[in-house]
Amino acid sequence: MQFRVITRFIAILVIFLGISMAGPLLVSFIYDDSSTRALLFSMLITSLIGIILFFCTKKQGDTHLNHRDGVAVVTLGWVMAGLFGTLPYLFSGAIPDFTNAYFESISGFTTTGASILTDIERLPKGILLWRSQTQWLGGMGIIVLSIAILPFLGVGGMQLYRAEIPSPVVDKLKPRISETAKTLWKVYLLITVVEIMMLFAGGMPLFDSVCHGFCTMPTGGFSTKNASIAYFNSPYFDSVFILFMLFAGINFSLHYKLIKGDLRIFGKDPECRFFLFILALFTLIVTLNTYGSVYESLISAFRAAAFQVTSILTTTGFVTTDYGKWPALSQQILLGCMFLGGMAGSTGGGMKTMRIMLLIRHGYQEIFRIIHPHAVTTIKLGGKPVPPDILGSIWGFFILYIGLFIIATLIMASLGLDMISSLASVAASIGNIGPGLGIVGPDKNYLLVPIFGKWILIFCMLLGRLEIYTVIVLLVPEFWRK
Amino acid sequence: MQFRVITRFIAILVIFLGISMAGPLLVSFIYDDSSTRALLFSMLITSLIGIILFFCTKKQGDTHLNHRDGVAVVTLGWVMAGLFGTLPYLFSGAIPDFTNAYFESISGFTTTGASILTDIERLPKGILLWRSQTQWLGGMGIIVLSIAILPFLGVGGMQLYRAEIPSPVVDKLKPRISETAKTLWKVYLLITVVEIMMLFAGGMPLFDSVCHGFCTMPTGGFSTKNASIAYFNSPYFDSVFILFMLFAGINFSLHYKLIKGDLRIFGKDPECRFFLFILALFTLIVTLNTYGSVYESLISAFRAAAFQVTSILTTTGFVTTDYGKWPALSQQILLGCMFLGGMAGSTGGGMKTMRIMLLIRHGYQEIFRIIHPHAVTTIKLGGKPVPPDILGSIWGFFILYIGLFIIATLIMASLGLDMISSLASVAASIGNIGPGLGIVGPDKNYLLVPIFGKWILIFCMLLGRLEIYTVIVLLVPEFWRK
Repeated sequence: MQFRVITRFIAILVIFLGISMAGPLLVSFIYDDSSTRALLFSMLITSLIGIILFFCTKKQGDTHLNHRDGVAVVTLGWVMAGLFGTLPYLFSGAIPDFTNAYFESISGFTTTGASILTDIERLPKGILLWRSQTQWLGGMGIIVLSIAILPFLGVGGMQLYRAEIPSPVVDKLKPRISETAKTLWKVYLLITVVEIMMLFAGGMPLFDSVCHGFCTMPTGGFSTKNASIAYFNSPYFDSVFILFMLFAGINFSLHYKLIKGDLRIFGKDPECRFFLFILALFTLIVTLNTYGSVYESLISAFRAAAFQVTSILTTTGFVTTDYGKWPALSQQILLGCMFLGGMAGSTGGGMKTMRIMLLIRHGYQEIFRIIHPHAVTTIKLGGKPVPPDILGSIWGFFILYIGLFIIATLIMASLGLDMISSLASVAASIGNIGPGLGIVGPDKNYLLVPIFGKWILIFCMLLGRLEIYTVIVLLVPEFWRK
Repeated sequence: MQFRVITRFIAILVIFLGISMAGPLLVSFIYDDSSTRALLFSMLITSLIGIILFFCTKKQGDTHLNHRDGVAVVTLGWVMAGLFGTLPYLFSGAIPDFTNAYFESISGFTTTGASILTDIERLPKGILLWRSQTQWLGGMGIIVLSIAILPFLGVGGMQLYRAEIPSPVVDKLKPRISETAKTLWKVYLLITVVEIMMLFAGGMPLFDSVCHGFCTMPTGGFSTKNASIAYFNSPYFDSVFILFMLFAGINFSLHYKLIKGDLRIFGKDPECRFFLFILALFTLIVTLNTYGSVYESLISAFRAAAFQVTSILTTTGFVTTDYGKWPALSQQILLGCMFLGGMAGSTGGGMKTMRIMLLIRHGYQEIFRIIHPHAVTTIKLGGKPVPPDILGSIWGFFILYIGLFIIATLIMASLGLDMISSLASVAASIGNIGPGLGIVGPDKNYLLVPIFGKWILIFCMLLGRLEIYTVIVLLVPEFWRK
C-alpha cells in the first residue's frame, strides 16, 4: 500500500470539496440567510485541511496507483467526503448531532436520499443547496467509479464493461479513461442543465429547480420540500421527473451515443430493453392494483404508479404519494425494485439490471441443461458469450449483497424495529434508494432509528454504493499486508 | 418419451398406495370409528385403478427408463399420489371439498405439514393415521429421489452425491442404487420405530406415538392434536422430538455410517458441522432475544428456542409455542430457517445446507480474488474441489428458487394477503415447512387462503419437494418433443 499516494489523492478530493462549498456560500450570501458564516468556516477548514494534506504528501517518484490503492482511495474518498460534508450541517446548527449529520451527509454523497430531517423547509437556503450538491458530486464520483475503476478491479461482473473503454473503434467511447470520465461528466452536466431549465420553465422557483435538478441525475432524491415532489402536485413536473429519473437509471455511455446521433440506441441495447420492460410491466401491475383500491381514476393510478415505480427502480427516491398505504402487492413490487436498481454504468443503485438479467438467463440455461444434458451451452449478452468467470463474479456479488442484507436486517430487528421496517430500511439503504416502508416509509424519515442502527445503515449505503467488494476487502486483514 | 413405461411405473406406485391403506383401514376397524367404509372404498378404488393401469401397459421389450422418463415418473408420481390420497378425506367427509382435500394430501406427500383443518381432534382415527402415513410414505419417496434420482439428473448440484453411490470402497454406501434405497429405507424405518417407542415409553398413547413418529422422520409435521406438540407440554417429549427432528434433517447416509460404527461421522462431515453450527447459533440468538421479552426464565426461552429452531430449520413444522408473538428478530431467524432447510440427502426441504455452504464459500472466494487478482482459486467441500459446472448448477437452482418464491409471493399478495402472510405462506410451502407467519402462523391454518392461492401453494410444495427443476422442465414444451 502506498499510503502517501493514497493520502495525496484524498487531499485533492478534499480541496475540491472545499472549493465546491463556494456555491452554497454564494447562495447563502445572496439570500442573506443564517448559514453564511457556517458555510464560510466549513469551506475554509475543508480547503485548509486538504491543502495541508497535499503538501505533507509531496510528490516522490512514481505516483501510479495500483489495484489495491485504487480500492482504498475510492472507499476512503467516500468516507472522507461524508465527514467534511457534515461541517455545514454542524456549524449552522441545521443538524447539531454528529451521527445525524454524518447520516445525512453520507446519504447525500452515496446518492441515497435517506433523511433524518423532519422539517426540511425551515433550513437556510445555503444548507439546502449544499445538501442537494452532495448528491450531485456523489453522482460524479459514481460515473468515474463505474466507468473507470470497477471494470478494471473486476468487481461483480463489471469486467463486462472493460471492453467498452479502450477500444479504438469509432462507435465506442473515447479511448482514454480520463477522457471518458470527462466526456460522461459533460453529458451529466448537460442533462442536469436541461432538466433545471425544464423545471424552471414549468414555473418552479429557480432555487428549487436547481436543487431538484442536482438530485435527479445522481438518482439522489433529496427534495427542498417536506412532502417531496408531492408538494408541487403537477402532472407536468411529474412527467419531467419521470423522464429525467429514467435518464439517470440508464447507462451513461448510451446517452453519449444518443447525443452523438444514434437515436435507436435504447432499443438496441439488450440491458436497456430489459430495464424498460421491467419498468413498463411493474407500472402496469401497480396501476391495475391501485386503481379502485386507492385511486378512483385510472389516470391517477397510472400517474402515481409510473412516478413511484420509476423513482424506486432507478433508486432515486422522490415521492408523490404515500405508497405505504398501497395494497401489499404494489408495496412488494416497490420492495423488489429496491433490489433490482438501475442499469450498470448509470448512477442508479441496487443490484443493477445487467446482473439480474444474466442471473435469470443462467437459471433458464440450467432448465435447458436438464432437458439436454449433453448440449454445450453458453450465456450470451448482446450476442456475445459471457465468460464463466464473469458469471462467477456476478454470483459472488449477488450472494454478498443478499448475505449482508440479511445480516443488517437481523441487526436492525434486534434494535427493536418491526419486520417490515427492518427489512425495508436496509433494502432502501444498501440499494441507495432513500425512503423505505414502515417507520422509514415515504411519509416518515430516519430520525427515529436508534443511533447504532443509523451507523449500520450508513455502512449499508457505502456498501451498496461502492458495489460491496470495494468496502468489504478493506475489512480483510490480508488486504493491508504486503 | 416412453408413455407406456411411465404409466407402468405410476401404476405400480398407485397399487402400492392402495395396499398401504390397509393400515388405516385396520385401525379404523379396531377403533370402530366412522371412517371404515370410506377407507375400504378408497383402498379398493385406488388398487383397482392401479391394477387396470398396470395391465393396460403390458411389458413390451425394454423398460429401461431414460433420463426424461425419470423426471416424468417422479413428478407425475407425486401428483398422482396426492390425487389418490384425497379419497379417504373425501369419502369420509373429513374434508368434503376437493381443493382442500388435495391441499392436505399434497401437503402430506410432500412432507410439508401445512393443514386446512381447524379441528384435527374430531377426525376419526383411521383418517388421522392416513394423514400421518402420507407423510411417512412421502419421506420414503424423498429418500429414493435424493439418493438415486437427483444425483443422476444433475439437479442443482446433487451431482456432488453421485460419487457416493457407485464407489466400491468399503466405507461408502452399498454400490447398487436399489440396494442403497433399501438400506436407507431400513435406516428410516429403524429410527422411526425407535422414536415411536421412546414416545410411548414417555407416556404418550400408542396411537399418537405412531402418528407423530410417522411425521417426524420425513420432516412432515402433521400432529393429531390441534395445538401440535404444545398439547403435551412435556420437556421429555420436547427433547425426544428435537432429537429425532435433528436426525431427520441430517443426510441419511451419515446415519447409515453411524449405525455401522462410525460414531464421529457427524463431526467429520463438513456439511453436518455447518448444519449443527447454524442450529446452535440460531438457538442461542432466539434464546437471548425471547428471554425477558417473552419468557421469564432462561430455561423456558432455551426450550422454546431449541424446539422451534430445530423444527423450522429441519422443515418439520411441529409447534410448541406461538412464535408469531416473538420479537421481530426471532421471527426473521425462523423465516431464514425456512429458506435454509435441512442437509442434502435428508428428508428436509428448503435450499439445503450444502448449497448455502457452497454459495457462501463462493462469495468469500470472490473477496479473495479482488485482493489477489492473479491467484487461481477453487472452492472446496471436504477437501475436494467442487467443479465449476456443479457450482453453476447450484446457482441455477438458487435463482429459480428465489425467482419462483418472488413470483408466488406477488400472486399471493394480489389475492389480498398482507405482506408478511404472502411471504411466509410461500416460504413455508416451497420450503416444505408447514406453519408460516401472519394468517398462516403457528396458531392458525391455511383454510382461509383463497382457492386460487391454495393451488399456488400446492404447486410451491411440489416445486420445493422435487427440487424445482423436476417440476419446471415438465412445463417446457421442448421437454415433450423428441
